[in-house]
Amino acid sequence: MRTVYVNGDYLPETEARISIFDRGFLMADGVYEVTSVLDGKLIDFAGHLARLERSLNELDMKKPAAFDDLLEIHRELVRLNGIADGLVYLQVTRGSDGDRDFVFPDAATTEPTLVLFTQSKPGLADNPAAKKGIRIISIDDIRWGRRDIKTVQLLYPSMGKMMAKKAGCDDAWMVEDGHVTEGTSNNAYIVKGGRIITRHLSNDILHGITRAAVLRFAREAQMEVEERAFTVEEAKSADEAFVTSASAFVMPVVEIDGVPLGTGAPGRVATRLREIYLDESRKAAV
Amino acid sequence: MRTVYVNGDYLPETEARISIFDRGFLMADGVYEVTSVLDGKLIDFAGHLARLERSLNELDMKKPAAFDDLLEIHRELVRLNGIADGLVYLQVTRGSDGDRDFVFPDAATTEPTLVLFTQSKPGLADNPAAKKGIRIISIDDIRWGRRDIKTVQLLYPSMGKMMAKKAGCDDAWMVEDGHVTEGTSNNAYIVKGGRIITRHLSNDILHGITRAAVLRFAREAQMEVEERAFTVEEAKSADEAFVTSASAFVMPVVEIDGVPLGTGAPGRVATRLREIYLDESRKAAV
Repeated sequence: MRTVYVNGDYLPETEARISIFDRGFLMADGVYEVTSVLDGKLIDFAGHLARLERSLNELDMKKPAAFDDLLEIHRELVRLNGIADGLVYLQVTRGSDGDRDFVFPDAATTEPTLVLFTQSKPGLADNPAAKKGIRIISIDDIRWGRRDIKTVQLLYPSMGKMMAKKAGCDDAWMVEDGHVTEGTSNNAYIVKGGRIITRHLSNDILHGITRAAVLRFAREAQMEVEERAFTVEEAKSADEAFVTSASAFVMPVVEIDGVPLGTGAPGRVATRLREIYLDESRKAAV
Repeated sequence: MRTVYVNGDYLPETEARISIFDRGFLMADGVYEVTSVLDGKLIDFAGHLARLERSLNELDMKKPAAFDDLLEIHRELVRLNGIADGLVYLQVTRGSDGDRDFVFPDAATTEPTLVLFTQSKPGLADNPAAKKGIRIISIDDIRWGRRDIKTVQLLYPSMGKMMAKKAGCDDAWMVEDGHVTEGTSNNAYIVKGGRIITRHLSNDILHGITRAAVLRFAREAQMEVEERAFTVEEAKSADEAFVTSASAFVMPVVEIDGVPLGTGAPGRVATRLREIYLDESRKAAV
């Protein structure tokens, strides 16, 4: 049985409960982060913490009292649950003043809710999908306009994963005004003539922590990077494609809407970036 | 202390808790309804139940086991909490299989979560705001594209109420592609030359239960109704305006973005429709 963290307490997962009046439950008024664990250490933790702080700021949500202890709480959960490889999920909501109202409760008297739990994923970095690549479909992006804030409003991404599953594929890329925004839970990239193309940062996409690291490593390795929107048609005619996320790292994409990319196998750029990212992230893990 | 309902149990509100793994909490994978109570009776209950069923269908979410008992549960909560005037809030989520995954849990083995609670609002139908009218601002509509499904993804409507509050106003109307969609938690109407204008039904707005009733009553009273999109500019030059919702019934709007409408007092059409709606709804209450 997992031990999870809820508002200061380490509890058995079956006893981890929150009020039905929590604004995370009633109004999706919450934000989250997922940090990978490799060899018992946290990957890109500082990046996730910084983005959490940004999400809270953007929503005028106050920091949970334990904010400065988050590294310690992550480590304690990893230790208590014996996680070698896996994830630590963290969620902060605006809490509850004991009733339901659209108006935010008084921040002076209402404490945010803080929840963390682990997921054990043995061999996370050796996911066989990375050797085969994943197949994706494109779907309309009908999410709200502030995708840069990592809120728990994940119903549509969840529906997107189900659409992909129904189509016999692994994931979906979302398309708005003819251009790919991102994957359901990852950033999207294509490679053309050796050049890595990925959508520029804006309110339209999540500012991926893994994205930032991968682009930095790519540039350090003298790869060309172009940050701009691209269409599904352009993606279908790309040499290769991939996605990045905290839990998938760099994952090659080998098919889009039934069209195989390049040779139909994971591309060289994606494979190389995955190696670099995993090597460098392990070195910097805390 | 209120008694609330959680998955078959009637509990003191402070003991009403759900798992941190509930998909309503982790992914906003839930829908809701709010039914008004006047004189201890439920207003438009059949309409809310039908819309709940539609929301569940649209999201491939199964009905909670107690679906057919919902009228009884509503009545029992009203009785236990001695509600004369107020609301019954109901939420269904996809439940939890004990962990977090974007993919829906197996519906054969995962039960939906069903939560209901009351809010006592003495004098709900005599809200003094209805005599004065409310003042609204317009804001961008950046919500997701399936607003016809009544999901708990209410963060932006909640932010909208805060924007209105900050501007010293009562509520906000949301605007997309130059046209008003709806209010943060109500449908929006203007009146011009005696004609009632409100946006047509589509995925862009909630299919208000009160909206349907009010338009029916308006037509029965030989008022002209036009269902089409209108701009904020058109609204500012309207003779009057109003909103409808389950808890506000028909509420006159007297100012939009600082521009007073007509005489700056509640209009005749809104006032008349409020009377008719309240009279007819009380008669049909269950």
